[in-house]
Amino acid sequence: MRCSTHPATSAPPPRPPPTRRPKGEMSAIPLHPTRIERLTAWLGEARLDCAVVFGADHVNHLAGYSRYFGGPAAVVVGDDGSRTLVVALDEAPIATEISSADEVVPYGVRGFGLDLDPLGSLIPVVAGLDVVATSHRIGVASELPGAEERFALAAASAELASAAGALARIRLRKDADELERIAAAYGLCWTAQAAVAEASVPGATEIGIFSAGEAAATLAAGTPIEFVGDLLSGPNAAEVCGPIRIPGTRPVAAGEGVVADLVARLNGYWGDTAETHPVSGAPEVVAAREALYGILKATAAKLVPGATGRDLFAELNACIRETFPGGEFPHHGGHGVGLGSFEDPHVIPADETPLEAGMVLAIEPGVYFPGRYGARVEEIFVVTEGGGVELREAFAGSGLPARPDLDPSRSVDA
Amino acid sequence: MRCSTHPATSAPPPRPPPTRRPKGEMSAIPLHPTRIERLTAWLGEARLDCAVVFGADHVNHLAGYSRYFGGPAAVVVGDDGSRTLVVALDEAPIATEISSADEVVPYGVRGFGLDLDPLGSLIPVVAGLDVVATSHRIGVASELPGAEERFALAAASAELASAAGALARIRLRKDADELERIAAAYGLCWTAQAAVAEASVPGATEIGIFSAGEAAATLAAGTPIEFVGDLLSGPNAAEVCGPIRIPGTRPVAAGEGVVADLVARLNGYWGDTAETHPVSGAPEVVAAREALYGILKATAAKLVPGATGRDLFAELNACIRETFPGGEFPHHGGHGVGLGSFEDPHVIPADETPLEAGMVLAIEPGVYFPGRYGARVEEIFVVTEGGGVELREAFAGSGLPARPDLDPSRSVDA
Repeated sequence: MRCSTHPATSAPPPRPPPTRRPKGEMSAIPLHPTRIERLTAWLGEARLDCAVVFGADHVNHLAGYSRYFGGPAAVVVGDDGSRTLVVALDEAPIATEISSADEVVPYGVRGFGLDLDPLGSLIPVVAGLDVVATSHRIGVASELPGAEERFALAAASAELASAAGALARIRLRKDADELERIAAAYGLCWTAQAAVAEASVPGATEIGIFSAGEAAATLAAGTPIEFVGDLLSGPNAAEVCGPIRIPGTRPVAAGEGVVADLVARLNGYWGDTAETHPVSGAPEVVAAREALYGILKATAAKLVPGATGRDLFAELNACIRETFPGGEFPHHGGHGVGLGSFEDPHVIPADETPLEAGMVLAIEPGVYFPGRYGARVEEIFVVTEGGGVELREAFAGSGLPARPDLDPSRSVDA
Repeated sequence: MRCSTHPATSAPPPRPPPTRRPKGEMSAIPLHPTRIERLTAWLGEARLDCAVVFGADHVNHLAGYSRYFGGPAAVVVGDDGSRTLVVALDEAPIATEISSADEVVPYGVRGFGLDLDPLGSLIPVVAGLDVVATSHRIGVASELPGAEERFALAAASAELASAAGALARIRLRKDADELERIAAAYGLCWTAQAAVAEASVPGATEIGIFSAGEAAATLAAGTPIEFVGDLLSGPNAAEVCGPIRIPGTRPVAAGEGVVADLVARLNGYWGDTAETHPVSGAPEVVAAREALYGILKATAAKLVPGATGRDLFAELNACIRETFPGGEFPHHGGHGVGLGSFEDPHVIPADETPLEAGMVLAIEPGVYFPGRYGARVEEIFVVTEGGGVELREAFAGSGLPARPDLDPSRSVDA
């Protein structure tokens, strides 16, 4: 296969200038039936009267409710699309304020940590809702261990069917409000990358640089976030990631690269990024990063409906191996992002699922030279008929964090 | 019931000076058979030939192996106590280096994120181990969804029994190496509390103070940690915690209190702390904090074998209500800490489990005045015949972070 991107020694393709659009308007992102419409369509096809789902991601997906330290919760979706959110009593006021559910119903008693079996209170309340009690056939899905089995006992007169597969398929395509949440988390990752770029100076430690990124993202969010990542420097960066090598107290030196793969969750949706930052000039690392960025853009252009992770991986992998003789590429080429930070679809040889418009994928080519250095870049795209639309560009002008200046040649002349 | 601690207006009891002991020696902590000895004793009683466990906490508990971003893993414990750790191929070298297993066996192929069903590689390797393949009766426990069912198919010729209950009981008592890990995480929490004390100045935001604590703990760890917490100021602090009120961009003011409940995980074990920090003098908050600290110490003295969470809660609750007429106390009085940050036993009305020596509990009295302020303190103790031993005191002189100066009268005169 012919690698159509730039070799490591050429200049990177110029980044397109961001297009300014009115706040909140997204560019070139297709509309499809909303997830509630898709769910009620499925309920109809499967001849189900309602869907009952348990667990934080399901509740966030179907009722837009996500909470730091929330108790077990459930959502019931009627075949007319009406949504009832069931939350712990103490959460009912905030759930009423921030969720998109039509109704919020509390369970349990006041107080935190006093009841070791909150499911014992949650499940009877769910089973007792009119919409549930009058249903003959119910679709059920749960992320809470044991909830499905206990609900089956509480709703013994109804026939139950699994809604897990249907919901997994529905989650693959993101609605506009979900894209906005993913973009917000993605923006925090780029805020962190800007802080990492700033902190990547000779003598700084890996963990110090990591912490600077985490603090910047947290302060930008204005609320605690989940933040995880790889941050490896110099020859460590050739060892790719967490299972093998974890950010530590190694001080970085001039001429080295810092690979930062930063992942953040805000309001229950994830963002994911990778950048390779030079420390006071690192021409070899900068050139590798530029070539990888070209491969990233070439792959992104192929994010169209019908493409598969298998084919995308084959092309991306071939380009990396052609561009970097002797370099290793021992990981996937990307993955879905949404309620999960590493979800379907995947850019790997084994994924033959055809992409659909509205899917969201991170693309992340990398290359690793053992004992010398590693480089990786990563951006997130929405699948459209015209190819992947980078998520910051999709929301350009909407008030989300702007693309920060992360030109890796920045510090070469510094 | 008579409340034997100090009223809110009195001075707090003086803190005992730390006793210096040789590095690594613990004071007054009882020895019991190690968890591997207790597990093999149970295997003998239950006439099982080995135990097969899946999942990160089980693996850390029985083989001392914890990894940021680790793949699915398993441990097999023979009836002689021998331990075989099974990890993803890329993790085998680091697992051999850092785990306490007798043998490390790899599964799968090189690379990250390429295999969407690593259990499909892990389970045959586990089932094929000599110790497993020659076992007639096997105890099984899993934290990985589906692993137990799939193992049952792979080991179809053996009779399987659940080891989940036995392992849950074994986890209640901590061995010396586990106490050391909990103490290390607990030390990070106190490092974060010291940073929070420093940052709690007029005009600082809740999220800024939270972030300062997180950064201090991360830098002290020298590696990424899991860090969660409540940090609420002024009247917000009366709303107790996460489901209702989350740290935000509220600036704190002189005369207010900052309640910081900070929880950190290092090497797979958790620490947990709470403190109430005054902002430039807050006499009412300081007095409440001092009275709560007296109640904390009185409760800790009762952490002896045979005591129950029910009785401890009753006394702690009565003391809070007697000391603070009109104040609310809508949460538990404490909980176990170890591989979980909120595990058995619990200081709540419903927990009648008799405590045993070697159990580890956080005790956390609080009081909340809606619209005005809240206060909470929390320390971790090991249950001993002589009462609870505070974890920093147990490890005094061992190189763990010393008790920081968090005297809340500190900033009154500043």
